[in-house]
Amino acid sequence: MSKKNAREKLMQELLAPEYRLKCEYAIHIIEVKLEMLMEQFYVERGRPVISSITSRIKTVDSIERKLRKKNLPVDFATAEGKLSDLVGVRATCFFEDDIYKLAERLTAQEDVVLIREKDYMKKPKANGYQSLHLTVEVPIYTQEGCEKKRVEIQFRTVAMDFWAQLDYQLCYKKNIEEKTSRQIQEKLSKYAKEIAGIDRQMMRLRKQIDKLGTERDV
Amino acid sequence: MSKKNAREKLMQELLAPEYRLKCEYAIHIIEVKLEMLMEQFYVERGRPVISSITSRIKTVDSIERKLRKKNLPVDFATAEGKLSDLVGVRATCFFEDDIYKLAERLTAQEDVVLIREKDYMKKPKANGYQSLHLTVEVPIYTQEGCEKKRVEIQFRTVAMDFWAQLDYQLCYKKNIEEKTSRQIQEKLSKYAKEIAGIDRQMMRLRKQIDKLGTERDV
Amino acid sequence: MSKKNAREKLMQELLAPEYRLKCEYAIHIIEVKLEMLMEQFYVERGRPVISSITSRIKTVDSIERKLRKKNLPVDFATAEGKLSDLVGVRATCFFEDDIYKLAERLTAQEDVVLIREKDYMKKPKANGYQSLHLTVEVPIYTQEGCEKKRVEIQFRTVAMDFWAQLDYQLCYKKNIEEKTSRQIQEKLSKYAKEIAGIDRQMMRLRKQIDKLGTERDV
Amino acid sequence: MSKKNAREKLMQELLAPEYRLKCEYAIHIIEVKLEMLMEQFYVERGRPVISSITSRIKTVDSIERKLRKKNLPVDFATAEGKLSDLVGVRATCFFEDDIYKLAERLTAQEDVVLIREKDYMKKPKANGYQSLHLTVEVPIYTQEGCEKKRVEIQFRTVAMDFWAQLDYQLCYKKNIEEKTSRQIQEKLSKYAKEIAGIDRQMMRLRKQIDKLGTERDV
Repeated sequence: MSKKNAREKLMQELLAPEYRLKCEYAIHIIEVKLEMLMEQFYVERGRPVISSITSRIKTVDSIERKLRKKNLPVDFATAEGKLSDLVGVRATCFFEDDIYKLAERLTAQEDVVLIREKDYMKKPKANGYQSLHLTVEVPIYTQEGCEKKRVEIQFRTVAMDFWAQLDYQLCYKKNIEEKTSRQIQEKLSKYAKEIAGIDRQMMRLRKQIDKLGTERDV
Repeated sequence: MSKKNAREKLMQELLAPEYRLKCEYAIHIIEVKLEMLMEQFYVERGRPVISSITSRIKTVDSIERKLRKKNLPVDFATAEGKLSDLVGVRATCFFEDDIYKLAERLTAQEDVVLIREKDYMKKPKANGYQSLHLTVEVPIYTQEGCEKKRVEIQFRTVAMDFWAQLDYQLCYKKNIEEKTSRQIQEKLSKYAKEIAGIDRQMMRLRKQIDKLGTERDV
Repeated sequence: MSKKNAREKLMQELLAPEYRLKCEYAIHIIEVKLEMLMEQFYVERGRPVISSITSRIKTVDSIERKLRKKNLPVDFATAEGKLSDLVGVRATCFFEDDIYKLAERLTAQEDVVLIREKDYMKKPKANGYQSLHLTVEVPIYTQEGCEKKRVEIQFRTVAMDFWAQLDYQLCYKKNIEEKTSRQIQEKLSKYAKEIAGIDRQMMRLRKQIDKLGTERDV
Repeated sequence: MSKKNAREKLMQELLAPEYRLKCEYAIHIIEVKLEMLMEQFYVERGRPVISSITSRIKTVDSIERKLRKKNLPVDFATAEGKLSDLVGVRATCFFEDDIYKLAERLTAQEDVVLIREKDYMKKPKANGYQSLHLTVEVPIYTQEGCEKKRVEIQFRTVAMDFWAQLDYQLCYKKNIEEKTSRQIQEKLSKYAKEIAGIDRQMMRLRKQIDKLGTERDV
């Protein structure tokens, strides 16, 4: 099949309402679970742990690009089988320790099956990127029965999200001189480390403040 | 226990975050399912079937009143065991036939267990009230495991919802003379029948229009 | 200019962010005003008066069709000058008398200038359509200064909105036999009258119920 | 008047629907303006400038506390006359330079009158707090005429908002030892400076990346 035909066939299947409805269902399920955990944590800790929850269904363009980059055939079955981020949910949190607790409680739920975990907070990417990525499977019930759907959940701190904004801006610039690009990358990577450092300082201070609360009640 | 104490204990349990979070989770699950069905139907029929979805958790006052009216003990266990509408979701739809189709698809889903059905559309209440009430059970997953939660789903037409507005207004009037009250009730009951008649006429006309669509493609 | 070129130029201007942002601003202003009135009325009457508020910016297709139908040149200046419904807001209300009160209070506000009123409730269209259409102008403030923007506000009852749904469905059917079309139109027109009749009966009953409230306090 | 009576009278006036509706109207107006600016900036810069917009009406408790602290009489007229933050809107932005541009465009609008500006970004508070506070007046149109309403708008960066979260947590702790409190305050103040430093580094890098975009088009 020609490159153009492959793309068009893929597009047709990815834009079919049946596919999109299932993706949206999976997103809803994860969002509801995160919102409930957010409320539980608020009750337990007396402070908010999640700043915002966003989601997206991967676009046809982005899927095609990723398949070609990985030298994989450009078709729907390969996309569904090989790419784990067709459906994505992102939770931006205030502190790193809350992120691990949220991830733990979410994956402890019987209907959430953890498929893979990539911890870019413990081991940041070369460019400085820090997040916790979980690939999970949730059941989608329709009148035809039950189907498993994969979702990639990204957890990151507010500060890292701010950093990622800038990294994302840079990705969309083109024809940048090799030297300029390298120089900006180096700065971004350096600032990522500084931000992570402040995140950790702030978390330690928060723990100290948390403890004050407990002592007060004595 | 005194009447006041019983009420206070019930209130405490009903306002506990743990109880409310589970109620909200159940509401979310049903809402997501209805939204998904709404989108599926739109794709299949080319027209909206649900006008609006609302929900509520039954208030302490309303629970206490209902338990007393039924001569039941005023406590949390009795409320949970005997009242099936502690958690309620309402879908207001354009046509009666869509309501039955929605109810059918919803209860066909593996994780939705139909406990009871009261069809006040086929058999209206004495005052004229028409709705389809389903009591269902859905699983709530938390880190402690899986728990079943009951939800009452009310389906009604837009026209019947309009009627119910007025019926609801009347309920909140007090010290009405016996004669006036009876007279208004009679009118309400008469208009309910007229509205149901128009609903059915409109549905027949809609079916005729739907059919035109099919023929056009031939 | 060729028909295709005229359309493309029009499209370009209608999709320009500057145009759309001003339309959205005008919509927001009217929506906020309606929401505030809705709350005021609720406080005064103890019952909701508006069921829902929706809005839309007229599409390029729809604008082009309307200009051609009116034998007007297909360009941006003509659209802005001659069509008063480029920006539209619709308030669906429970009762006719509330609609007139809402319209009165809205147009009494200093920054809302009433340009034209078409009362299809008092004088329904031939097909049975009933609504109150107001064309108003509101000031849009940007850093460049103040600009007047026209908005068409449609008020209709819940029952008439239900009717309009069906009328709208019919519009999108094509190649219907003359006889069938006429027959359906006649039914629609007949049902519109019946719905308007019920609307009025219900309003009278509501007034009777309203009065009970007043007497109670004596 | 006794302390209790003064409080109750104030509460009555602050909870009156008329007062609250006007506050909400003013909030809506500012929110709509900020949303429009957010969209304009996105079109111009190809990147988001506002991360989130929130608002609040000052609570009775908070008003009473502030009046007593300032040794002012606890009544409605004094609150309205002397406190400029009864109605508050907060815009959390990614970068400091965008904040100044937003503030400039907002106050350039004819119907927004700037009453006072406090720039805690240029001159941070002793505890490290950094924000730009604008007190503005906007016209509120009702059927009774036009009234001026004061709103405090706070602009801050995402990073400073994260910092403020922790500062806020600390405020709600009680009976903390003098030494502990001072020590935490010092850390908070130090981190505020570090965060501001990173904010500025990131802004410089963003400007460098922005410039790349311009060059690309050449």
